[in-house]
Amino acid sequence: MKVYLDNAATTPMAPEVLEAMMPFFTTHFGNPSSTHQFGRTVKSAVETARKSIARQLNCSPMEICFTSGGTEADNMAINGAVSQLGVRHIISSEVEHHAVLHTVAHCHTDRDIRISMVDLDKQGHVNIAHLRKLLADSEEKTLVSLMHANNEIGTMIDLDEIGDICAEYGALFHSDTVQTMGHFKLDMAKTKVHFITGAAHKFHGPKGVGFLYLSKDVHIEPLIRGGSQERNMRAGTENIYGIVGMAKALEMACADIEGHQKYVQGLKDYMKKQLCEKVRNVTVNGCEDRSLYTVLNVKLPPTDNASMLLFLMDIDGIACSGGSACSSGSNQGSHVLRALHVDQKSPNVRFSFSRYTTREEIDYAVERLVHHLNPIPVMH
Amino acid sequence: MKVYLDNAATTPMAPEVLEAMMPFFTTHFGNPSSTHQFGRTVKSAVETARKSIARQLNCSPMEICFTSGGTEADNMAINGAVSQLGVRHIISSEVEHHAVLHTVAHCHTDRDIRISMVDLDKQGHVNIAHLRKLLADSEEKTLVSLMHANNEIGTMIDLDEIGDICAEYGALFHSDTVQTMGHFKLDMAKTKVHFITGAAHKFHGPKGVGFLYLSKDVHIEPLIRGGSQERNMRAGTENIYGIVGMAKALEMACADIEGHQKYVQGLKDYMKKQLCEKVRNVTVNGCEDRSLYTVLNVKLPPTDNASMLLFLMDIDGIACSGGSACSSGSNQGSHVLRALHVDQKSPNVRFSFSRYTTREEIDYAVERLVHHLNPIPVMH
Ligand SMILES: Cc1ncc(COP(=O)(O)O)c(C=O)c1O
Ligand SMILES: Cc1ncc(COP(=O)(O)O)c(C=O)c1O
Repeated sequence: MKVYLDNAATTPMAPEVLEAMMPFFTTHFGNPSSTHQFGRTVKSAVETARKSIARQLNCSPMEICFTSGGTEADNMAINGAVSQLGVRHIISSEVEHHAVLHTVAHCHTDRDIRISMVDLDKQGHVNIAHLRKLLADSEEKTLVSLMHANNEIGTMIDLDEIGDICAEYGALFHSDTVQTMGHFKLDMAKTKVHFITGAAHKFHGPKGVGFLYLSKDVHIEPLIRGGSQERNMRAGTENIYGIVGMAKALEMACADIEGHQKYVQGLKDYMKKQLCEKVRNVTVNGCEDRSLYTVLNVKLPPTDNASMLLFLMDIDGIACSGGSACSSGSNQGSHVLRALHVDQKSPNVRFSFSRYTTREEIDYAVERLVHHLNPIPVMH
Repeated sequence: MKVYLDNAATTPMAPEVLEAMMPFFTTHFGNPSSTHQFGRTVKSAVETARKSIARQLNCSPMEICFTSGGTEADNMAINGAVSQLGVRHIISSEVEHHAVLHTVAHCHTDRDIRISMVDLDKQGHVNIAHLRKLLADSEEKTLVSLMHANNEIGTMIDLDEIGDICAEYGALFHSDTVQTMGHFKLDMAKTKVHFITGAAHKFHGPKGVGFLYLSKDVHIEPLIRGGSQERNMRAGTENIYGIVGMAKALEMACADIEGHQKYVQGLKDYMKKQLCEKVRNVTVNGCEDRSLYTVLNVKLPPTDNASMLLFLMDIDGIACSGGSACSSGSNQGSHVLRALHVDQKSPNVRFSFSRYTTREEIDYAVERLVHHLNPIPVMH
């Protein structure tokens, strides 16, 4: 049995998404910048996709800029804020994705931007009083970059609350929404945020494509320069299939967010319950209330084969994760858990679900996990 | 009849390429950074693709960095040379692609890099004596950025010759090879070049993916920061399908470069001959000898419906181009033809071919073109 419980790393593509992409691999192969009919057909598909995504976010199509993924979109927002919007101070947090952390760090070393890290509690919540103090003390033009939901532990911020606070202090606000896009309702007419980001492969769309929402109040220059694609905001021949697939995936995700949420939250609660019943001393990392319904990160009791645990699960055909996918090659543990002072000696495992996950898969995963944690003593 | 003669803008994807990509849309959907089997399968496909591309270029897989396209690769090379390799002076030319020109211009305004433009003759050839003089007079660390073949007029440089000259003066050398990749043999063990670039969609691969070759002698930092993908050179979840498709497309292109060259050059010669026979005062823009066999750019005689010509061809189902695709939306004419002082009042049309183009298609295009240039007088 193969069980995929690593949907925070990437999700399987919806078959309907592939279907929507197919004509652009064959018949509609033009370059959208070409003015002849081969180009126009494709151009119109790109603009239809843009409108569709804008509709889901309740914003203007002009506010959507296609990119090669969530990482590029995060880079673009932060670099643009510094290079074109006069930002000299960035307030962020230790648990941000590396797409944000490394970009912010580079702004410090390369552009001498001041960086402040907001205090977090043990569950990863932003200390609002500290955020207010940092903003009140900031004399320079400031960008706040705080992720909507953490990809490892699932803890979420209240986007509207932080947006209002930023507005109060005249700060720009960027939120990495890569884990919430297509999973939570986002309403750009309501929320005071200047930049949010999406990566299609996190909501059953294709890899290698994403987008930046930038509020019409902000004008930034491209990170990637060249042709006049994306209204001069992002050069390079467009990833047509990706863009068409992403729009389809977001439509499907948003068509029934409540339904998906209810179903997937049910799976998460079920797994948590199972684990609490069957495993001694299991605790949940991150917040248990305001959290991604797709992510369950647990601290398991110390065990002899702790370091082997993910490996043994893998042999059983079960995909789950120790940290985020992006850092799993690096063997340095999780910067998120480290920032929250979670003991990384006993195993911490992230299970992440999707609307395609089943209860049977969870039963199997729990059964194998319990097995590996309590190996049957070998008879001698 | 639909006739696609705009292969310099983008090429139709080879069916075999789509076939190679398909499993990664369905079964093999993991994140290559994940350490479990869903991730490992995909990781290994990425590394196999890298090895395949390295083999075609006779370089080490370590020297290939995947990007979202040719534009990003060009940006990465030029920015990296300035940010990490100490370059303070860039020598380039007026006919470069905007991916190079705009990036170079930004280095000037943002980083105070000195820019020199090398003299070109009327066919777009680099004045070698002038290049040598610019290099000899350069006291700062210098990057030469000259495209291997021009995408509008097809004129090519001798990559080895320019590489040797750069080496002689200790300059770094970047060449935009987007139009020659997969169409000409490139041998990185032989040619002294530090950076070359490729975009899959120019050689019957997918859009939204490309690569940068960077010689192992140069170490640059990422343009897009975040996860540790691409050995810390390019962050973001990889465009797996794109990478797999690009490797397949390059294999197919390189499997019989001579054959494709002979066939396509035959089409180009045939069309040129037809046009010279049937159209008064037609002249070829760019070089007629050392030139892309895929591109034929002609200046046509002044005609009443000059501005209508591309439009009329389009109505006949024939796709060809007035400038490059990237600038065709902008209505500012061609910066390449302008730099070469080509009169842009009479129509200049670029026809570009591929191994899928047929003689019948060319016959049809010539017939319609002649028709539109010599409209049958209406009887009154
Ligand atoms: C919170 C968060 N931000 C950004 C990213 C980067 O997205 P991508 O790898 O598609 O560029 C990810 C996922 O990898 C993520 O989980
Ligand atoms: C010479 C040249 N360089 C760079 C590019 C940019 O490639 P892409 O649009 O795939 O990023 C192109 C094509 O558009 C080109 O012809």
